[in-house]
Formats: sequence, C-alpha cells, structure tokens
Amino acid sequence: MSSALFDPVFGADRVAARLDDASWVAALVAVEVALSRAAAEHGLVPVADAAHIAAVAADLQVDPSELGQAAVEGGNPVIPLVRLLREAAGYAGRSVHPGATSQDVMDTAAVLLSGWAGEIVLDDLRGAAEAAAALAAAHRDTPMIARTLGQQALPTTFGLVAAGWCAGLDRGRTELARVLAALPVQFGGAAGTLAALHPHGLAVAASLARGLGLADAAPWHTERTRMGELAGALAVAAGACAKPATDIVLLAGTELGEVSEAAPGDSSSMPHKRNPIAAITARGAARRAPGLAAVLLAAADHEHQRAAGAWHAEWQTLGELLRATGGAAARLRTSLGGLIVHPDRMAANLTLTGGTDASPGHAAELVERLLMERP
Amino acid sequence: MSSALFDPVFGADRVAARLDDASWVAALVAVEVALSRAAAEHGLVPVADAAHIAAVAADLQVDPSELGQAAVEGGNPVIPLVRLLREAAGYAGRSVHPGATSQDVMDTAAVLLSGWAGEIVLDDLRGAAEAAAALAAAHRDTPMIARTLGQQALPTTFGLVAAGWCAGLDRGRTELARVLAALPVQFGGAAGTLAALHPHGLAVAASLARGLGLADAAPWHTERTRMGELAGALAVAAGACAKPATDIVLLAGTELGEVSEAAPGDSSSMPHKRNPIAAITARGAARRAPGLAAVLLAAADHEHQRAAGAWHAEWQTLGELLRATGGAAARLRTSLGGLIVHPDRMAANLTLTGGTDASPGHAAELVERLLMERP
Amino acid sequence: MSSALFDPVFGADRVAARLDDASWVAALVAVEVALSRAAAEHGLVPVADAAHIAAVAADLQVDPSELGQAAVEGGNPVIPLVRLLREAAGYAGRSVHPGATSQDVMDTAAVLLSGWAGEIVLDDLRGAAEAAAALAAAHRDTPMIARTLGQQALPTTFGLVAAGWCAGLDRGRTELARVLAALPVQFGGAAGTLAALHPHGLAVAASLARGLGLADAAPWHTERTRMGELAGALAVAAGACAKPATDIVLLAGTELGEVSEAAPGDSSSMPHKRNPIAAITARGAARRAPGLAAVLLAAADHEHQRAAGAWHAEWQTLGELLRATGGAAARLRTSLGGLIVHPDRMAANLTLTGGTDASPGHAAELVERLLMERP
Amino acid sequence: MSSALFDPVFGADRVAARLDDASWVAALVAVEVALSRAAAEHGLVPVADAAHIAAVAADLQVDPSELGQAAVEGGNPVIPLVRLLREAAGYAGRSVHPGATSQDVMDTAAVLLSGWAGEIVLDDLRGAAEAAAALAAAHRDTPMIARTLGQQALPTTFGLVAAGWCAGLDRGRTELARVLAALPVQFGGAAGTLAALHPHGLAVAASLARGLGLADAAPWHTERTRMGELAGALAVAAGACAKPATDIVLLAGTELGEVSEAAPGDSSSMPHKRNPIAAITARGAARRAPGLAAVLLAAADHEHQRAAGAWHAEWQTLGELLRATGGAAARLRTSLGGLIVHPDRMAANLTLTGGTDASPGHAAELVERLLMERP
Repeated sequence: MSSALFDPVFGADRVAARLDDASWVAALVAVEVALSRAAAEHGLVPVADAAHIAAVAADLQVDPSELGQAAVEGGNPVIPLVRLLREAAGYAGRSVHPGATSQDVMDTAAVLLSGWAGEIVLDDLRGAAEAAAALAAAHRDTPMIARTLGQQALPTTFGLVAAGWCAGLDRGRTELARVLAALPVQFGGAAGTLAALHPHGLAVAASLARGLGLADAAPWHTERTRMGELAGALAVAAGACAKPATDIVLLAGTELGEVSEAAPGDSSSMPHKRNPIAAITARGAARRAPGLAAVLLAAADHEHQRAAGAWHAEWQTLGELLRATGGAAARLRTSLGGLIVHPDRMAANLTLTGGTDASPGHAAELVERLLMERP
Repeated sequence: MSSALFDPVFGADRVAARLDDASWVAALVAVEVALSRAAAEHGLVPVADAAHIAAVAADLQVDPSELGQAAVEGGNPVIPLVRLLREAAGYAGRSVHPGATSQDVMDTAAVLLSGWAGEIVLDDLRGAAEAAAALAAAHRDTPMIARTLGQQALPTTFGLVAAGWCAGLDRGRTELARVLAALPVQFGGAAGTLAALHPHGLAVAASLARGLGLADAAPWHTERTRMGELAGALAVAAGACAKPATDIVLLAGTELGEVSEAAPGDSSSMPHKRNPIAAITARGAARRAPGLAAVLLAAADHEHQRAAGAWHAEWQTLGELLRATGGAAARLRTSLGGLIVHPDRMAANLTLTGGTDASPGHAAELVERLLMERP
Repeated sequence: MSSALFDPVFGADRVAARLDDASWVAALVAVEVALSRAAAEHGLVPVADAAHIAAVAADLQVDPSELGQAAVEGGNPVIPLVRLLREAAGYAGRSVHPGATSQDVMDTAAVLLSGWAGEIVLDDLRGAAEAAAALAAAHRDTPMIARTLGQQALPTTFGLVAAGWCAGLDRGRTELARVLAALPVQFGGAAGTLAALHPHGLAVAASLARGLGLADAAPWHTERTRMGELAGALAVAAGACAKPATDIVLLAGTELGEVSEAAPGDSSSMPHKRNPIAAITARGAARRAPGLAAVLLAAADHEHQRAAGAWHAEWQTLGELLRATGGAAARLRTSLGGLIVHPDRMAANLTLTGGTDASPGHAAELVERLLMERP
Repeated sequence: MSSALFDPVFGADRVAARLDDASWVAALVAVEVALSRAAAEHGLVPVADAAHIAAVAADLQVDPSELGQAAVEGGNPVIPLVRLLREAAGYAGRSVHPGATSQDVMDTAAVLLSGWAGEIVLDDLRGAAEAAAALAAAHRDTPMIARTLGQQALPTTFGLVAAGWCAGLDRGRTELARVLAALPVQFGGAAGTLAALHPHGLAVAASLARGLGLADAAPWHTERTRMGELAGALAVAAGACAKPATDIVLLAGTELGEVSEAAPGDSSSMPHKRNPIAAITARGAARRAPGLAAVLLAAADHEHQRAAGAWHAEWQTLGELLRATGGAAARLRTSLGGLIVHPDRMAANLTLTGGTDASPGHAAELVERLLMERP
C-alpha cells in the first residue's frame, strides 16, 4: 500500500504516511483501547482494566510483518492483535475486545484511517482550489482563446478557466468532507446484535463513538452504502484534479505555451524541454481512481451478516484510492501554486483565428460569481 | 439504449421508456423551446417568435433514425434538430437556439432526462425500501441464524436483516434524490462566456433554469463533478439493491429455504425448482453499475472548453447506468414486495449449530431504531 | 442495446444491426433448429421432426417485445421462445430443445452474435489499419516533431507515427479474431452433465457445434474465462482505436494543424471551426470500453452450476462492449481513411524548437519493418 | 505497493517480494547494465566501460526512499538513477544510458518485473490447477447435487465441478504465460526513432533484448496493446481463481457442508465456526482485479510520442494487479491443496429434492476429457 519509490513521484507520501502498516496498527489499537474504555464506562469491565489496557497499548510494540503473518490464519489482523494486547495486559486482558467482532475493529479503524488520511487529501484539495482561485482573481480579464473539440473557438479569459478549475476542486472537496464527517463507528458484535453486551450494547456503541470522535450508527457490517459514497466522493475529487491537470499539460504544450510550471522537469537529453511534471503526475495519479472506486462499488453486495471476500476486497482498495486522490491533489496543488501564466502567448494565439475582435462576454462576471459562491 | 427483449427481464422497461430516443428528442426540443422563451423574456427575441416556436415544436415530427443520421456530421443531434426546428418555425426560425452551443442543449436535456428517469428509479427504490420496512416490522422478533463468512454464527432476527436492507435502500435513495435535485441547467454559449447574449446572458440562463424547473449555475461545460456525483449515487443505489438481492438468492437456496419469492420462476425441465428470479435479475442489473459508473468518473478530464470524446462518452453510459440501477430497484421491489418468509425453516436451521439457546441481543431495538430513523 | 439516435453518431449502426433484438431472436432460433438437427443426427428425435422444426422456424414471427414480456417470469427469453416454437411445430414440438437448458441456448446464441457482430468489428479494425498503413507508406519520410509529455522533443516522421497506429490496430484485431474464432458451442443440459441425452450427449454436442460452425467444448456454464478473454480483447481493440483518435484530435488542433479530417464537422456559430468529428466520436466510443470490460471480468465468479446474476449481467454488457469497440473502429476508419496530412505545417512546427537540423534516425527503417511485420 | 500487514493475508507476499521498491531498482539497474553492454557490443561505447558499469552496478547501494525523492523533479526514477550510476561509474559514466530515454528503461524494467512476478503467479495458478485436477480425478464419480440459480437441480459429480475449476485455471494460466512470454524490450530513444544511435540503433535494441532474454520489437512507447493484453490476462486469471473460491465458500457453508478447508480460520468468540479463510481471502484478492485492469485498459490512449499521465498511471496499477492475481492464486492453491471433501454430506443433500435416482449423465466422461485436454 505504500512505496518509498513511487509515493513521492505521485504526491502520495504525505497521505501514505497515514495509511501505512503502522497507521493501521495504530488505528486498530486505538479502537481496542476506546472500546475497553467504553465498556468500562457502563460497568461491563473494570475501569482499572481499561486504564491499564490504555497504558499497555501506548507502549505496545507491534511488528506489522509478524502481525501480518499471524493474521493469515483468521484472515484479518484483529485476531492476533487482540491476542497480543491480551498478553501484554496481563490480568486486564479479560477486558480487551469486549463484545466485539473483528469487523467492528477493522471497519472502525478504516474509518479512523480514512479520516486521518482524508484530512491530508482535503488540505491539498483546498490548497489547490486556493491557488486556482488566486489565478482566477488575478486573470479575471486576461483574454485567451477558448478551445472546443480541440479547435480554437471564441475568446474567454484565463480567469474564467481557472475559476472553473476552482469550482470543481471546491465541489469535490466539500462533498468528500461531508462523506468523511458522516462515517460512523462500527460496533455490532459477532452477529450484529450486540448480544454479548446486552442490554448495554447500544450504550457502549454510543460511548465508543464519542470516545473516538465518530458518529454513532446502527451496525453496518453488510450495509455498505457509506463505503460506496466514500469511493464515489474520492473518485469525483480525483476527477476534479484531473481536469485542470489535463488543461495545464495541454496549455503548456510547446505550440500553445500559455502556461508553464514553476519547476518544470528537465530532460537530460533534451535541454529545451520544460515538462509540466507536477500536472503530469497529478494526471497519472487521478487516472487510477475510477477503477479503484469501481472495485469498492462492486463490493457492495456483502452477503449475509459478514461478507466472505467483498469485505476483504475493501481494505487495500480504499488505501490505494485515498493515495491516488490525495496524490493527485498534492501534485496539482504544486502545479497550480507555481503556475506561470503567459498573457503574451495567449494574446498571440488569439490572433490565429481572428479572435481578437470578439468579446469574452460574461467572463469577468462569471469569475466573480464563481469566486463569491465558494464554500 | 433500450431493448424490448431485455428491458422487461431486468426491470428496466419503465425507466427505459423515459430514456429512449423519443425521450431524448423530447428533452432536446423542450430545452430549445424554453430557451427561446427565456430569450424573449429579456427582449432578445420577439415574444411572438418564442410562442410560435413552442407551438411548432409541439407538433414537430422527428424521426430519431433520420436525426441520428443527420447527427453524424456534427457529432451530436442538436445541430440537425436546430435545423429542423428553424425550418418548421419559418420566420421565427431566427429565434431558435439563441446564444446557445450544442453542449448547452445536450447537457440540459441530459439533466431533464435524468430527472424524468430518476423519478422512476427513486420510486422503485422507495417501494423496495417500504417492502423491506414492512418485513422488518413484521419479523422484528423472528429468530434466525446470522451467517458470517458463510458459516452459521449466532442468532439474529429476520427483522434486523430486513431493516438493514431498508437502511441501505433509504440511504441510496436519499443520496440519489439529493444529487438529482441539484442538477442545474447548462447554458454558456460557444465559449462558456455567454458572449452572444451579453449583457443579458446570465439573466437568460436564470430564466431558462426557472422555465425548466432546474437549478441555475455558472456554465459547467467541462466542470463535470456533478456527472461524477450522479454516477456515484446511481452505483451506490445499485449496490444497495444488490445486497438484499444477494441475500434473497442465498436464503432461498434449497438447503436454507428461509425465504421464497411469491412468483418464482419455473424451469421446464426441473419442476421442483423455485428460482427467485426477481432477485436474480436484480443482481444481474446491479452488477452492471460499477463499471458504467467508472466510465463516467473516468470521463471527468474534459479538456479545454469542450471535450473531444470525454463528453461524448457520457451520453449512452448515463442512460445505461440509469437503466441498470432502475432495473435493479424495480426487480428488487418485486422480490421484496412478495417475499414469503419461512420462520419454521429459520427455526430449524437455528438448531444446526445449537443457536437456539443464544439470544438475538439488541436485534429488536435495532429494528425499531432503524425504522424510526428512516428519512 | 441499440439507439437509432446515437448509434450512427458513434459508428455503431452497422454492428448494432447484428446485435439488436431481432438478431438475438434469430440467433436463439438458429441454435434451437441446429439442436433438433443434431439430436436427429443421433436418432434421439425423428429426422422429420427436425426438418419440420427448421421449416417452421424459418417462418416464425416473433415479436421481441412480447417475447421480452414473456421472458420476465423465467428470467430469460429461451423459455418462452421454446414454448412458441413448440406450439408452432405442432406434433414435432416434442423434438424442440432436446436435452438442453436455457443457458445452453443463450450462451451459444451469444457466441453466434459475437461472431456476427465481431465480423463487422474486425472489418472496421482492418479498414482502419489499412488506412494507417497507407499513411505510413506515403509519409515514411515526412518529417514532423515528436512530442513527449506534451512538449516538442526531437524529429520523427509522420510515417512512423502512422505505422505505430497501424501496429496497434493490427494487434488488437489479430487478438480479437483469435478469441472470437475459439468461442465454442455451449451444451451441457440442466446440470452440465448432458444427462438427458446420455449416452449420446457428447456426440450431440459435437454435431451441434459442427452444425453451427463453432468449436466443440466441454460445457462451460460457469467456467467463464472465454467471456473474460473476449472482454479483454474488445477493450484492447478499443484502446488501439483510442490512441490514433487522440493523436488526430491533438494534431488537428488549431495551433498544431498537422492533420485534418476530410469531412470535418461544422459549427453553426463558428464557421472557422474544423472539428475532426470522426476521431472525436471514435474517442467517445472507445472510452466506454474499459468499464464495460470490467463488468464482464468481474462477472467471472459464476457460482455453482448456473450463476444467479453474474450470468445475467453479461448479456447486455457484451452487446454494449461490441457496439463501443465496433463504433470506435468504424469512426476511426472514417477518420483515417480521409485524413489530410499537412507536411507544410509539420515543417513549420519543426522550426519552433530548432528541430530541423536533427535527424529522424531509424524512422524510415522502422516504418518498413512495421509494415513488413503486418499480420 | 506492498504491505507487510496485508500481503500475507491475501497471499501476495511471495509475489510482492518481486514487485517491491528494491525489485524496481534492481530491474532498472539491470536494464541500464544490459544497455551499456549492448551498446558496447556494437562499438558505441568501450567494452571496458560496460564491464565497469556492470561491476559498479552490482555493488550500487540505492535507497529507494532517496531515489523516490529525487525522482519527483523529473517524474520518474530513471533520471536520478542514471545520475547515481554515472557518478558511481566515474570515467565510464559517459557510457551509461546510451541513446536511451527514461521510458525505455521504465518500460523494460516493468517487463522484467512482470516476468519475475509473473513466474510466481503462474506457479501458483499451476499449483491450484494441479490440486483441482487431483480432486477431479479422485472424485470423478462422487455424486453431488448440481445447483442452478441457487436451487438444487440434478445430480452431477464433485469431480466434474473440480474439473471445471481446473479448466478455468489452466486457461487463465496458459493465456497469461503466452502474454508474458511475448512482452518485448522497449528501446526507442527520445523520440522513438533511436536517432542518437543511428545507424546502429536497431542492432543495439536487438542486442539489448537478447541480453535481457526478452523479445525484440519496434519501439512501443505509445502503442500499449501489450499492456492491455497483460491486464486482460491477469484479470481473467483472477476470475478463474474467483470461481472456485466462491464455490468453496458456498459449499463450505454450514447448511451445505460439502467441503471444508484443511486449516479453517477460528473465531475467538464462536468456536463452532470453521471459516474457509483461504478461499475467502482468495475472493477478496480476486475482486480487486477487474477495476485495476480497467485502469490499465483505459490508459491505452497514450498521446503523441510519450503520454503525460496515461503512462504514469500504469506503474503502480500493474504492480497492484500482479499482487491481486498472484494473491488470489496463492490463497486458492492453499484452499484447494488441502480441501476436504465430504461425500456423506453430498449424498445427504442429494436426498433433499429426490435427486438420488437421477444419473450424473456424462459427468465421468467429461472429467476424463477435461483432464486429458489439460495443457
């Protein structure tokens, strides 16, 4: 799920750091600790046990590789992690994992991780949108030719182009933030009935949610619309990054030359080349998102009360999708943040099809409207 | 986009009737009529012209096949339709298509069609959810075994299973309704600047939106997050249908026998078979959605001010996706609406792994909570 | 599955004519007729019955819409078609559908249809490749600038660019032809054991294959690698069309102007525009293929001896994919067949980065090698 | 691209070890070494230089993380690796990377890696097929009920079921092996014309291919049908694993109980559970493949002479797809290799719908045919 070699190239290193094996372990442990505390809150386990578990967990050394090997037998890392935690907790081991099933812990950890990583993704989407907004404001009236179906059409302004980029990035971010904020705790126990904690199960679930800063919800072990919504929102945000990245690649082309990146990539053999490498790699990252989202959307048919495969397909796919979208946002932010606009080339290109006489119509008003409507 | 042979099998005939060639023509014409009216409202074309265009359009006979052939040259049906409408309108032909570009009309028509078809999809999602809710209420306390990873686990109730189906269907519907309701008019003119109508372009756009009952928005020719959101919402709703359909197929299996459909499909050669054919075909329809959604999500990178291909890829894909999701909802509604529950078989299966002593925990409370939380 | 409005726009009318409802009915009937004949060949039904069935079938009037409605109950059109055929055949009705299950007939019909439609797809792929080969030969030495990462790089020749297009189209076609030719008959009976015809089942299957001109094979009701291979081959062929279409759109852009289409699309409001509309719609069609292929690939997990949904998801998806790939090939063939090359613009663009001094290296040799290696 | 935590769970550790950052570095270095040697073979660089480069490369310590950071600027790791290698090679640095462009080295390295990893994938596919074949032979005559659309149908034998699994796995493997074996070297230089080495470029390419044990081919920088074929073959192979995995999960269900895994996963809270965890995780891995394949298929439209994004999207996706398919094969091999068949339960289930009297028809013959036809 992470690659020291490729993550930086595709802008995913910052988001990957919150999605790596250590982060998964940290999230799983955080859920177990919060669960013991929530159970203690309702008198189901001793408060002292919960405190001891929290202390022990803070010092727990978990080798992801060993945990991974131990996870093969049961098909997920929660089972061996609970064993580790129980051993480490000694007498308080009895109070680890009360009433829970592996999926409770995996799903809630995935929600935590999505929040941690999502924060980075949202930040980079915001940064990219800010940069686009600044370009829109600065070039509200900078004339350029609009191109439709690849052909020069009529004049527009670069500000309106950038305002459109900004609008997409804002929409993608707002929607993603909405979906992320609504992701709830998962707590249903072995059969989704919280039977082991009856009649305190629902109260413990509420406490667990509160403890982790998540929304409360009825168990959703096999009701995966939320996962689908997250997949959709991430892919839409990636698409919102792909659009400006594609435009920048095209506008930076030698013959158009209307923009260039602040730190274009060199080519050892061709010193005249000025590759808009941030936009290029943003596109590379964004193109991975739709297929990854389709995997998560296709995994919606969780059968019975715990899916035998559809659930398992989510874990790595979600991580990859967060990395792809986050990487696209980060690289686009870099591209937009340092974008150099060449009004002279825009003006020169406008003369090619006689577009200099025509007016950019409502372009300036539209820029202002789009900037004013920003969330 | 439609098949008299397959649409009924997959429940798509009702939704397909709002997505067929004639519906496309009707939507395109409706946009042109409304546009002339909106322009007249602001004095840009004579009011009498707009009225005449509306009258002519109401009687206009358009052969989709001829229109399709005529559309090859320009790559979309708006160009020849405008020609037809202008010819039919005689002197008022001058007031057809004022200030518009083909994409304005295609996109707004696609929004109208999505609304028309979406109404059916939402209705069937609602019907399916209602049926699931009724099952949940009726079987709040009907014990059955929960199955995790394909194995019998601990008891739950059938009511909780059905309440989970209902929750997913409700979420899928609510989200889809939200996205559909927000789809705005498209009106930007040749370069997205509304130059031809300046300084009245924005006012005409607002009037056009009002006339068609759509939201107003700045031109979004190549800012396609809305299309991505629609794709995501449709695929999520399809997934919400797939989950209960899969469960029904499994629960109706000979060895489990816990539910059966009211009108199961016969088999000519095997009279003992009772295929849950509505659920089966709901699954068949739903499985098409994720890949179709991925096509729309991947088409987000509309380059420049009108995409040369990414835009065109949307038209048929959107129709297919609406048909797939709508079909899944319709067939699931049929399946759920007549679902026969066999508490005796549920009870018998519970004895297989000694699950009869265990309690279904918070199942009844969760059913009530889920039903009470319904939107 | 077909649209009189959109099929021509996306080049799919010719292929769609072999995939429409009537074609499905024809294919299903052809399988039933051949099956009765094959059974007669081995004495399992009277030869006179088989002949009578063939005669009756030739005159059988089937309304796809009625058949579709009648197909709802059993979930596929074979059941009511067999009923129709039996009624029409009178006494010989006893010899209709001997030993078969619906999937035998649906799958074999799908194979027939794929062959019928595939012939068109292959023809258009071949036509497109021929046109590319002619361009490669004619412009073996026409210098142009190579562009890497959107930037001018070093010189190449247009012939080498076109030879690369040709190579991709040839590979896509060859592979698709190979997969299509290997698609076998499906004949396994209710449980895939051909029990009803034992001990003559395998012989009847072989005769059926021969009668339909298909390969023989053990029943593959739920062994769907062939369907996946077909999906992959179609998507690869679509991708082989997308590459030149994308290049043409870019090279035909106003600022590059190195190629143009023979019959570019006009724009009513912008008479200076020369949209390469064939390439544009080829791209539009091709972009639909990967998601459709993913649906077929994801449907590989046919459970037990007949899948309850995964099988059903194939029918319409396969038709859409054939239409998308076929349309892309047809539109690209049109684009390439009339492509106008502008060596003067290529020469002028070469001067922008001083590329005129550099040599196109092995370009001419590579063109000759690629043309010589053509299948 | 790799996860110590999840790779073992999904059977991907063996294949991931050949796809990790260190493997990428090793492959890139191998290409550079072979290229210097190939150039030396034709007198373009001193033979002593090439030998020195090889020696230096053997000792080169590359920190993937540093290389990744250094790769950001140019968008791929080849540029900084060449720098490292030149520095390390001292005077012979002049003979590093002769006539090559980054894509030559990246693509050829990806081909090498695909071969290295593919060997593992093929081995596990073969092992899984062998296990299925053994089950087929051993249970040629073991009666069980065939299930169609989830319902009991008529008798078959478990041997025929297993023979079908074997057939799919063999087809998937054979096709994948064919595609992998045909993957050629990439060598085209900056513009795909091998200009820098003219007139020796083609000879160097042939030597490079020979040196690396790869097929020779004209440059295919933006002719990506091979990548699409590889994606298709991997996804088909994953599907061939998904089918038996799904069957095993269903047949191992408590109520059916016809098979069980040798080392089923325990559940801490439910000791009676016997989760077929190898099959479950095989399914989890396989479900990721179609979406990943779609990303690669959608990336076919490499524009001009080096794609700005479509190419970059391939690298990580290809690795993920190899891991997903390889993991599915490895876990399925484990599942099948130890599968315990319960003929008594098969016999008991046969009595439920009176299937005991019917015959399994040609089942035994089909088993023998399928086993005899094995590649």
